[in-house]
Amino acid sequence: MSHTGFRHGSFQGGSSSDEDLVEVAGGMLDFSMADDVPPLDREMAEGFSSYNGGGMNGARQVMDFLQEPLPGVGTYEDFNTIDWVREKSRDRDRHREIASRSKESAWALVHSISDAFSGWLLMLLIGLWAGALAGLIDITAHWMTDLKEGVCLNGFWYNHEHCCWNSPQTTFQDRDRCPEWRTWAQLLTDREEGGALGYVLNYFLYVLWALLFSFLAVLLVRGFAPYACGSGIPEIKTILSGFIIRGYLGKWTLLIKTVTLVLAVSSGLSLGKEGPLVHVACCCGNILCHLFTKYRKNEAKRREVLSAAAAAGVSVAFGAPIGGVLFSLEEVSYYFPLKTLWRSFFAALVAAFTLRSINPFGNSRLVLFYVEFHSPWHLLELAPFVLLGVFGGLWGAFFIRSNIAWCRRRKTTKLGRYPVLEVLGVTALTALLAFPNKYTRMSTSELISELFNDCSLLDSSQLCDYLSTNSTQGDDLPDRAAGPGLHVATWQLVLALLLKIFITIFTFGMKVPSGLFIPSMAVGAIAGRLLGVGMEQLAYHHHDWPIFKGWCSPGADCITPGLYAMVGAAACLGGVTRMTVSLVVIMFELTGGLEYIVPLMAAAMTSKWVADAIGREGIYDAHIRLNGYPFLEAKEEFSHKTLAMDVMRPRRSDPALTVLTQDSMTVEDVEGIINETTYSGYPVVVSWESQRLVGFVLRRDLVISIESARKKQEGIVSSSVIYFTDHCPPLPPCSPSMLKLRSLLDLSPFTVTDQTPMEIVVDIFRKLGLRQCLVTHNGKLLGIITKKDVLKHIAQMANQDPDSILFN
Amino acid sequence: MSHTGFRHGSFQGGSSSDEDLVEVAGGMLDFSMADDVPPLDREMAEGFSSYNGGGMNGARQVMDFLQEPLPGVGTYEDFNTIDWVREKSRDRDRHREIASRSKESAWALVHSISDAFSGWLLMLLIGLWAGALAGLIDITAHWMTDLKEGVCLNGFWYNHEHCCWNSPQTTFQDRDRCPEWRTWAQLLTDREEGGALGYVLNYFLYVLWALLFSFLAVLLVRGFAPYACGSGIPEIKTILSGFIIRGYLGKWTLLIKTVTLVLAVSSGLSLGKEGPLVHVACCCGNILCHLFTKYRKNEAKRREVLSAAAAAGVSVAFGAPIGGVLFSLEEVSYYFPLKTLWRSFFAALVAAFTLRSINPFGNSRLVLFYVEFHSPWHLLELAPFVLLGVFGGLWGAFFIRSNIAWCRRRKTTKLGRYPVLEVLGVTALTALLAFPNKYTRMSTSELISELFNDCSLLDSSQLCDYLSTNSTQGDDLPDRAAGPGLHVATWQLVLALLLKIFITIFTFGMKVPSGLFIPSMAVGAIAGRLLGVGMEQLAYHHHDWPIFKGWCSPGADCITPGLYAMVGAAACLGGVTRMTVSLVVIMFELTGGLEYIVPLMAAAMTSKWVADAIGREGIYDAHIRLNGYPFLEAKEEFSHKTLAMDVMRPRRSDPALTVLTQDSMTVEDVEGIINETTYSGYPVVVSWESQRLVGFVLRRDLVISIESARKKQEGIVSSSVIYFTDHCPPLPPCSPSMLKLRSLLDLSPFTVTDQTPMEIVVDIFRKLGLRQCLVTHNGKLLGIITKKDVLKHIAQMANQDPDSILFN
Repeated sequence: MSHTGFRHGSFQGGSSSDEDLVEVAGGMLDFSMADDVPPLDREMAEGFSSYNGGGMNGARQVMDFLQEPLPGVGTYEDFNTIDWVREKSRDRDRHREIASRSKESAWALVHSISDAFSGWLLMLLIGLWAGALAGLIDITAHWMTDLKEGVCLNGFWYNHEHCCWNSPQTTFQDRDRCPEWRTWAQLLTDREEGGALGYVLNYFLYVLWALLFSFLAVLLVRGFAPYACGSGIPEIKTILSGFIIRGYLGKWTLLIKTVTLVLAVSSGLSLGKEGPLVHVACCCGNILCHLFTKYRKNEAKRREVLSAAAAAGVSVAFGAPIGGVLFSLEEVSYYFPLKTLWRSFFAALVAAFTLRSINPFGNSRLVLFYVEFHSPWHLLELAPFVLLGVFGGLWGAFFIRSNIAWCRRRKTTKLGRYPVLEVLGVTALTALLAFPNKYTRMSTSELISELFNDCSLLDSSQLCDYLSTNSTQGDDLPDRAAGPGLHVATWQLVLALLLKIFITIFTFGMKVPSGLFIPSMAVGAIAGRLLGVGMEQLAYHHHDWPIFKGWCSPGADCITPGLYAMVGAAACLGGVTRMTVSLVVIMFELTGGLEYIVPLMAAAMTSKWVADAIGREGIYDAHIRLNGYPFLEAKEEFSHKTLAMDVMRPRRSDPALTVLTQDSMTVEDVEGIINETTYSGYPVVVSWESQRLVGFVLRRDLVISIESARKKQEGIVSSSVIYFTDHCPPLPPCSPSMLKLRSLLDLSPFTVTDQTPMEIVVDIFRKLGLRQCLVTHNGKLLGIITKKDVLKHIAQMANQDPDSILFN
Repeated sequence: MSHTGFRHGSFQGGSSSDEDLVEVAGGMLDFSMADDVPPLDREMAEGFSSYNGGGMNGARQVMDFLQEPLPGVGTYEDFNTIDWVREKSRDRDRHREIASRSKESAWALVHSISDAFSGWLLMLLIGLWAGALAGLIDITAHWMTDLKEGVCLNGFWYNHEHCCWNSPQTTFQDRDRCPEWRTWAQLLTDREEGGALGYVLNYFLYVLWALLFSFLAVLLVRGFAPYACGSGIPEIKTILSGFIIRGYLGKWTLLIKTVTLVLAVSSGLSLGKEGPLVHVACCCGNILCHLFTKYRKNEAKRREVLSAAAAAGVSVAFGAPIGGVLFSLEEVSYYFPLKTLWRSFFAALVAAFTLRSINPFGNSRLVLFYVEFHSPWHLLELAPFVLLGVFGGLWGAFFIRSNIAWCRRRKTTKLGRYPVLEVLGVTALTALLAFPNKYTRMSTSELISELFNDCSLLDSSQLCDYLSTNSTQGDDLPDRAAGPGLHVATWQLVLALLLKIFITIFTFGMKVPSGLFIPSMAVGAIAGRLLGVGMEQLAYHHHDWPIFKGWCSPGADCITPGLYAMVGAAACLGGVTRMTVSLVVIMFELTGGLEYIVPLMAAAMTSKWVADAIGREGIYDAHIRLNGYPFLEAKEEFSHKTLAMDVMRPRRSDPALTVLTQDSMTVEDVEGIINETTYSGYPVVVSWESQRLVGFVLRRDLVISIESARKKQEGIVSSSVIYFTDHCPPLPPCSPSMLKLRSLLDLSPFTVTDQTPMEIVVDIFRKLGLRQCLVTHNGKLLGIITKKDVLKHIAQMANQDPDSILFN
């Protein structure tokens, strides 16, 4: 039986564990049917003992030595999957206890009420912290991005924009130019216009700063918190589905991720801070959980909090509280009860308002790229919008394929051994290529903001350089012919598009914090703006064409290139992440106008269909698979016709299932089985012959209990018989005392028949959050299916090598 | 065993069924352990047959006469609960078949693609239809409401507002007065000002029209579609949870509900059209399902469509597509996969845009009470907002109690026998009390619209009658002293509040279509506006008080009474329905401003907490319980410590479970059991002695198959042995031929152990959508738990009489 431990080589720097997720074992399975166990009547079966650690059967206690829960019983090891059913039962037990005690005294009542409101308090704290951190990150990243180009004489802590705000002589036209702000060349050479030398000097210093920032970032990540790299969303999805990765959401990860995120964004790499903000918010949530017993001690409850924290993270990333909640619901969460929905909403709102009161962009908006459009769109414009959707889908699929191929190459070749060099190389390349082009030199979110912008009369931007006409009425600007500035800008945007498309593939997955939202949106926004400008010029010069007639006459403002940019951004983001509702709602919250939902939706739908036709997985799922995380996808239907018997262990050729009997095994026998096998749990049966299931006992609990009994309980020796039964027979004199372990037993293990279709088994695993499920045939125990078996089977059915997936 | 049929007396006019939801039976349960069945080896167990009707085990077929699915096998009777697992398996089978066939020919590929897109097409159609119907209802109801007061001379089909639009001499001040619009008194007496006589005449005709409308409504409902009454949301929740009520979503119900809804709204009763619009949209969805085989034949898939239709209904009711989707998710849906989320969103959007292009209110808004506020709110204002929340919660709890008490009275006393008289009485009372007061005479949605309104300079409304000051700058109106008109309006509003509070209790539940959203919102909006005006005057006259200092100096526009009205409306609606996220999002979509979310959220949260402290159930859940619908609430945690063995049938004192054996019963034996018991399914065991479970067979399938076999298959007589096994022993010569029914068997029945806590069992029932679950002890079949048993147990644990709940 090649059923060895579960390895996690993919967690660089993380402690690796050889513990099996959940077990299956060799042993004897006998189909002989004689069933000579003395009959148990129902009365006798009545008394049953409690599950240790506040387990599910907390009722009537049986007298055995395990009256007090032993420390460690009922907890999980690192890199294991939690048992949702058990965790939720424990929480209900806890809740019942508090509720019943609350009637006893006023103090207990206060405790009960404070317990009920602790969830809300936690949400408030998460919102405040996440909002404040996001504000801090925004402000620092903005300042450091500008630091690459120059410094403010009024005070080095001002960024370019703030520096010139204080300058009185600034007009709106050149609000970016003021004497207080000096480029490095101006500062070093002390000349106003540097000429070629100044340019080279600025170029050189720009690259140098970028290298310095990224070098610091990668050093910090490698040195202190290896989990801080990447966007964190694949891992958070996995954690929320019930996996345990200790330290992934810890305080070190939070600290280092916050610092390195600022460094990475400022270095000018093609990455965003939006995805990592979700990780940061989840760290806040996890750390704050430690303040409340209710959440500290219960893995399931803590995951509810993390779902809400993820919503808060997106809320501050995009200034979209509703979109954040829907993102958490649609994309990252696994178990999302309605109570969590409401609380997530609260946390997301608090976070958004905290960020707004910090006002990092100086415009009392939550994001840099908030936008208001003035003109409606025409039904015929749906054609270019759908085209953008197709582009987004194609780009998304292309990006996922290339990025996964590159990441796999990084894992399997020498490349992976030099992460610092890789980061420095990519940074140098990005900076060298980016500086000459205005649109790649500015930070990506500023670029997006400029692309989304609807040109107004006062706009001095190159993108708004149209030849002016005299037919302007009020605020409405008619479509006009492109001026020379726009022609230049178009070419620069094409180059920027090419750079972003290629460099992002190599950037995402490096050992620095890196989000994918902003680069994807940038690619889409550039493509959209280009198409928008193209459409506008086409309509201006050919307004007599039948398709433009009636709605795009001369002097009318019929095409808004900014809207095209926004639709393109949504399409590309949708193609990469396969988000749907949350994407549209986030974009809706950026514009605030219900009428722009339809273009966004058309693009997002097209993009998802096109991308899904090429490859089913979104980028996060692809990275989950690449890293071999045990994540059971809830969205994909399992559509194969296999049965439970095809998946269960032992397989037909394997030795039979390792089981314990309820009343005939000695301590020595059990220890022998524990030492011979690595499985994390064993079914307990009435007898070898009958194979009738009594319950299920976890290895960890068994080991701890036997050890403790040997130390503390008198008369427990190797030949002591272990009883899992309710009543024990009277002991013959002089025999060693017996060890009663019924309280360890899970008396309600989940079972399915061997004929159950796997689609139903998969459904049960997903919906109930099981770790394992026992398989019976005509009432006899036949085998076991673990979550890992299910995952391997799904991989196998999808023609992927199951071992490469779970054991890389 | 007092385990009789499940009655539905509460469905007036609906056909009642004595079929049990699912069965439990008397028989022999023997605990002797001898297990003398010949061993089945795994190879032998491999071949297994398909489930009829495209069942879950469609794989390797066994040769028996049931090769072709019999008509009726796999369908449900009226007033039964569907088996979600089976329905979903059938859909997967169907999908697999189409997918595998699509590789064969181009035509099959087209079929496969059209099948994949049929869901989207269906959503489009639902959106179009629901939006169009909502527009029609809006326009007609508006016109008929005005018809009670007068008629337009330009054309009787114009409503008051449209009539005066065409009048050229109208100024903004008296846009409601124009010579073309004549009150009935003016028309009949032919005098411009009617004086006292005219008033009386108008009063009389107003009441008469109201009586006529409501009389027509109740007659139509009683005569043609009894299901058209009420809001329909409790029933839709029940249907979506898996119950079958034939005709509830049929075309007659749709037609009659649409017509009577207009009549009921126009009659001036204290009811709204928003709740019934959800029912109307669901009818559209259900009828459109018949166009697509995929949805027509599958109860689970159809319910996904209905969830989306409910979202579309709310979307057009409030002009809030996102709120509609969240309402469907939070309030009405039971099974809501992410795919449905996306599609619901699409349907909701299409519906909203259809309605907007119809433009029923002439303001290119989706609702009458869309509003824009101009001034921000101050943190200190949270105190009155929370106060409104408390009011909303108290009112909600009071309303639910009184309304349920009144509805129970209606059911149990003579009152219920005279629905027409009741409706006429309530209408007469409402109309008599409403006419003298301007604010109750206008339609409730107009009232809400006026209350939400932020007073502008040009506003001629009584509510905006302030004493003018000269310090006006721009659009911003400072707080001013109340004028005489406002004083009058205040008293009128107090009277209107009292009327609405009491009359709504008697209105909701009558035999006309009646929604609760609008009356609840009206109560809250009046209370909120009153508080808002009070606060405003307090702040104006006492701006030197410390609490007002700093933010409410003279000349500042610091308090917006319209915002208070909106917050109050949210609070009352929240208190009655216990909606949370969806409520806030709906209100957010009405205002469009993110900053007003916080007041709304504070009020909604307070209101829910206050109302929950008094009674846990929202109005819909209370009505579900009142009517005894088999609805398993997904939101409430089951928190008791009972075990599966406490709930399962047979109880300890009952005769043992009725089971069939797999290879020893004759046709006669089985027919005997079917005739003696009323249960809708039977477990099949290996033998009486072993009680080892093989599978589960449904009564309906068994009856149909035996009948058909007796007719069509030769040699099937009463003494024929029925085999549920895979392989049958060779027949002795001259014995009657055997009947192989393995294909009927569900080989993967769900089982739990007798020690399983009920909280886990309830969870399993909810999450997997089970109809029944078998209970085992140490591998032996012991009993069965049906959904009804679970519901009865929950009721019992909540100290409610289980029989009064399920058998009223």
